[in-house]
Amino acid sequence: EASFDPKEHQHLRYNPLRDSWVLVSAHRMKRPWAGQVEKPPEKHVPRHDPRNPLCPGNTRANGELNPDYDSTFVFENDFPALQPHAPDPGSCEDPLFQSKAARGVCKVMCFHPWSDVTLPLMKKEEVVKVIDKWTELVEELGATYPWVQIFENKGAMMGCSNPHPHCQVWASNFLPNEPALSDRCQRAYHQKHGEPLLLHYAKQEAEKKERVVVESSDWLVVVPYWATWPYQTLLLPRRHILRIGDLTTAEREGLADIMKRLLTKYDNLFEVSFPYSMGWHGAPTGPHLKEDNSHWQLHAHYYPPLLRSASVKKFMVGYEMLAQEQRDLTPEQAAEKLRNLPEEHFKTRED
Amino acid sequence: EASFDPKEHQHLRYNPLRDSWVLVSAHRMKRPWAGQVEKPPEKHVPRHDPRNPLCPGNTRANGELNPDYDSTFVFENDFPALQPHAPDPGSCEDPLFQSKAARGVCKVMCFHPWSDVTLPLMKKEEVVKVIDKWTELVEELGATYPWVQIFENKGAMMGCSNPHPHCQVWASNFLPNEPALSDRCQRAYHQKHGEPLLLHYAKQEAEKKERVVVESSDWLVVVPYWATWPYQTLLLPRRHILRIGDLTTAEREGLADIMKRLLTKYDNLFEVSFPYSMGWHGAPTGPHLKEDNSHWQLHAHYYPPLLRSASVKKFMVGYEMLAQEQRDLTPEQAAEKLRNLPEEHFKTRED
Ligand SMILES: O=P(O)(O)O[C@H]1O[C@H](CO)[C@@H](O)[C@H](O)[C@H]1O
Ligand SMILES: O=P(O)(O)O[C@H]1O[C@H](CO)[C@@H](O)[C@H](O)[C@H]1O
Repeated sequence: EASFDPKEHQHLRYNPLRDSWVLVSAHRMKRPWAGQVEKPPEKHVPRHDPRNPLCPGNTRANGELNPDYDSTFVFENDFPALQPHAPDPGSCEDPLFQSKAARGVCKVMCFHPWSDVTLPLMKKEEVVKVIDKWTELVEELGATYPWVQIFENKGAMMGCSNPHPHCQVWASNFLPNEPALSDRCQRAYHQKHGEPLLLHYAKQEAEKKERVVVESSDWLVVVPYWATWPYQTLLLPRRHILRIGDLTTAEREGLADIMKRLLTKYDNLFEVSFPYSMGWHGAPTGPHLKEDNSHWQLHAHYYPPLLRSASVKKFMVGYEMLAQEQRDLTPEQAAEKLRNLPEEHFKTRED
Repeated sequence: EASFDPKEHQHLRYNPLRDSWVLVSAHRMKRPWAGQVEKPPEKHVPRHDPRNPLCPGNTRANGELNPDYDSTFVFENDFPALQPHAPDPGSCEDPLFQSKAARGVCKVMCFHPWSDVTLPLMKKEEVVKVIDKWTELVEELGATYPWVQIFENKGAMMGCSNPHPHCQVWASNFLPNEPALSDRCQRAYHQKHGEPLLLHYAKQEAEKKERVVVESSDWLVVVPYWATWPYQTLLLPRRHILRIGDLTTAEREGLADIMKRLLTKYDNLFEVSFPYSMGWHGAPTGPHLKEDNSHWQLHAHYYPPLLRSASVKKFMVGYEMLAQEQRDLTPEQAAEKLRNLPEEHFKTRED
């Protein structure tokens, strides 16, 4: 029998945050691609577009006027999936027809007054302002809501129609599936091993080095051992931190720096403004603020879809939807590629 | 407080096959769509394309020659994600770096010699041949492999590059995540309630009617109460059946008929060859053939991405990836739309 080579031999890897497995079949990268290619992103985005509802001074769909903001800007989503006062659906005896009330708020947050910048092209001080505002929103909404989900959909490929740099913040009166699962997994690990799962993991990865993309004294970015998306990464603080609000000023500055470095590498990979969905997971809030959540470690997930080039993405379909996620290159190959890319952005920002 | 209306008031619904929740926010359909639109599928597909590796008599990427087949045709995937003899990755002490051997086979199955037909446009006898071949493959591969996943990716939007009607069959030496979860859920329900989950569910839906799309004496198609994709459906036999191999000849004929009816409605919805991923779930095989699997009920899932029109799909991104799946119309609205569509295909097949 041949000796095992992860680049040649398919195998399964365990995701301890989701208690599930991913199929790694790196030899699949050899197959030719004749499938759908994505449209390249808009070449020229104007700095200010009078018809863009996210720009300073413009009117939004509901008739409200945006202020002439010069840093971040937060407003309530005009088409919120979660509203604060939805009535209760009532209960049903049958276990197969169960529903529950869902209440919450959805906010949109612009990162910058200009439409033609993205996080990696923003100044470090400007990114710090974004992190400060995230912190504020988690503290404000997390005072009552058990979960506050910060997420960014970037690029048309990720269902994002607006090139203006922005993210969303959805707070809910329930713990959604993904954080609920992650909570269970982190809690069980902590109970068994007496250490937070992701704290132990970060230490191991910092020593092993093979999956590290960028690192600093406070932060670490790796392609996780169990990554499902081709260039998926996990952003972790090195010390034990439950929530974004627990970061020191220096750690927020370090975070701005490491985000800029990671996102610059992402853009440089295929010389395109790299599409992704990203989001923060930290210990639950609201009623959970009073509980012991020491099994939690703050982290951000980046899920970018591109696989082969700026226009060929990974399709999570068929086998992935019905059976199990499958990836076509090893996490170590992805990390090496990203690590070796320059930290200077292929585009320069015009001020 | 207003009285609850599922079309107006967001709420959560429980998916008993995955032990998770979906957020239903039907009022979101009111928001305008300015995002990515998908390319319409190729207008004219030639019946026989000399360069298409799936057509009869053509040569494939690996140099093999397809026979001049006149019904279904099965061959080994030229770029398999699962191969029968991959070496074992070996074991690691650390619980955060766990891997396992993955072995299996990947087959491709053409449904018909012509590239310009799809299942709804095929004759009933031709669809019966597809079902017979599925049965044969599950019996053959399932003799040793614990899981045999039949799935069809249809349309470029679903990562499928080839218009020739075909599906794939991947058999593995492990129970993948999705069937493993479904097995756990069905088993727990059966233990608690003394009846198979999906058998009870089908009876309830057949009475309630509001989520039924098509039905016959042997089969039922519903938009499940917990559907996540806009027009997702669940295809169920009415009697207790563990695996596709347990169907009688009459039930296979009934299946061909109900599939044609469902898929015709799908195509008629936006007058386009409807993209989807579909697949079969039945009781596990191989070593599980000797176990009691009476908690299982055979079923097929259809996961179609289109939401608003032939070119606007639902993006499962951001909140969905990081927190929880969310849908923009109620399952009852989707079922009603599909139910009211004609059962005659908007296109006629030219023989
Ligand atoms: O096997 P194909 O058709 O080349 O590939 C397609 O289906 C596979 C199985 O669902 C997916 O892993 C691929 O991402 C998709 O492009
Ligand atoms: O809120 P948006 O940007 O209009 O919509 C986008 O993000 C949402 C949250 O991830 C998704 O539910 C939508 O499918 C997607 O198109």
